[in-house]
Amino acid sequence: MRALVVPSDPPSRLELTDEYPRPVPAEGEVLVRVHQAGICATDLEIVQGYMQFHGIPGHEFVGTVVAGPARWVGQRVVAEINCACGVCPVCQRGQPNHCPRRTVLGIAGRNGAFAEYVAVPEANCRIVPACLSDEEAVFVEPLAAAAHVLDVQPIVPTTRVAVMGSGRLGLLVAQVLALQGCELVVWGRNPRSLALAREYGVDARAVESCPWEACYDVVVECTGSPDGLPMALALCRPQGTIVLKSTCHDRAPLDLAPVVVNEVRIVGNRCGDFSRALHLLATRRVRVRELITARYPLARGREAFAAAARPENTKVLLEVGVT
Amino acid sequence: MRALVVPSDPPSRLELTDEYPRPVPAEGEVLVRVHQAGICATDLEIVQGYMQFHGIPGHEFVGTVVAGPARWVGQRVVAEINCACGVCPVCQRGQPNHCPRRTVLGIAGRNGAFAEYVAVPEANCRIVPACLSDEEAVFVEPLAAAAHVLDVQPIVPTTRVAVMGSGRLGLLVAQVLALQGCELVVWGRNPRSLALAREYGVDARAVESCPWEACYDVVVECTGSPDGLPMALALCRPQGTIVLKSTCHDRAPLDLAPVVVNEVRIVGNRCGDFSRALHLLATRRVRVRELITARYPLARGREAFAAAARPENTKVLLEVGVT
Repeated sequence: MRALVVPSDPPSRLELTDEYPRPVPAEGEVLVRVHQAGICATDLEIVQGYMQFHGIPGHEFVGTVVAGPARWVGQRVVAEINCACGVCPVCQRGQPNHCPRRTVLGIAGRNGAFAEYVAVPEANCRIVPACLSDEEAVFVEPLAAAAHVLDVQPIVPTTRVAVMGSGRLGLLVAQVLALQGCELVVWGRNPRSLALAREYGVDARAVESCPWEACYDVVVECTGSPDGLPMALALCRPQGTIVLKSTCHDRAPLDLAPVVVNEVRIVGNRCGDFSRALHLLATRRVRVRELITARYPLARGREAFAAAARPENTKVLLEVGVT
Repeated sequence: MRALVVPSDPPSRLELTDEYPRPVPAEGEVLVRVHQAGICATDLEIVQGYMQFHGIPGHEFVGTVVAGPARWVGQRVVAEINCACGVCPVCQRGQPNHCPRRTVLGIAGRNGAFAEYVAVPEANCRIVPACLSDEEAVFVEPLAAAAHVLDVQPIVPTTRVAVMGSGRLGLLVAQVLALQGCELVVWGRNPRSLALAREYGVDARAVESCPWEACYDVVVECTGSPDGLPMALALCRPQGTIVLKSTCHDRAPLDLAPVVVNEVRIVGNRCGDFSRALHLLATRRVRVRELITARYPLARGREAFAAAARPENTKVLLEVGVT
């Protein structure tokens, strides 16, 4: 089958092949024919060597089940990306997303969706309601991650919230938090993204004009940059909360004394519940189509990756088997 | 009066003088004759230039009110160290310890207690019950800070807790948390401190023997070292909490990706409630006398500071006006 592949030696590049073996679903898995897939920041990092991943990347996708248990075949699905063992102490404690033996679709130990077919555990599949287009459904994974902020931090109408970063993730987080009726500002750099945030009804401002007052109850860090946390610390009020979404691997020197002196809470936040994301999309509470700035066929996947790395692009889609 | 003074130029040293003017209490303040004072890690940092403080350091003390409103005179008191303005938005929000205009006894903008007399706001004074000795009362400030961990993190009998560091603060935190009946281990370096923790009934182990499993629900970081947070991250389970007590000013390179991937919560934690600390001491729930390893008269204050910096000392007291 056709696939984009990060080779094992050297891992830091991306190749297109038409000869990758079609996956054979294991017991408890289904085979999904991929319709569309989204490129995210993690994918860009993987191609730079993150996670020492090799194989097929891609974890944001929608497709149709073509093999597996009969009840699944023909269903249009998205799939949660963490594949847990189920039996270790962490899984038994109810934290499958943190299973130390987990594989993660297109990120760790398991091929992903930048290919014509992908095998996923049936337990991970979520059926996409007919009212959602493929282009919308491909946002379920990042939207689930965005809405996961609400699982670690109550947001009420009197909560003063700053979202740092107006990229793919920042614009999803901002839309989800705006639904809480909170006092919300998005601080970003890209004029087009800031304009889009305003179109979504969110107050969005250029970070260059930020007065850097420590006045926000909650700062959600979505910059994808090592500067994100120091900026968030400058904006967070004493005893406020910083929700850290960016997985930055640059080791930035960080003065932790202000965290203690100002008694700030920093909370790491990763993957969220797909059902909630599907509900947000199906009820038209969150808009995603405007985030798509480019589409490429799988055969032009390397170009798509180059495009996704450019700041003018918000979300780049790979059209694999468009229906 | 006799006092230890950090001069303004250069600030990075400590001088003894007999000629410092006795403080004149402002409106709303009382004058306290100091009995005893404790040297803590912050004092050692101040003498290295921390906070660009100059004047008289010292914020752990007990003394007798000798001037001020009549109802206070003759009372034996300890005093909360943060002196807030009361009228700014932060104070009005109920966070006086975070008042941006605050002065802090012996730390920021206000002379402290390494002197024969100190002036403090009467609102900050807490009367010491007769059942407590001066040597015990001098621990109220650090014990209040130790017990403040409970304000940001519920600790129940099934909570697995690691205290990193068996110094002054670690031994107080460990005693307070042990009262919750939790599963508690102190990881430290100093054999004498570890033995003392065991004497307090706490499981204490040499950090060199640590298996570095990410198994603790809560890790309280009391190492006073820039290595403390990376070690705490190695011990904290996914979605667990690290309570950060050390104010380290060395900017340590820190890979924040594990914070996000493991969804860890890092909570800065500083000053606590004096009333609770007095209650813990008065009811004999926490023992502090064993922590005292050296006593020096104020006149030998510079020697006392040198002693406090040596690892074999846990708590060094300055005997100012012992009664």
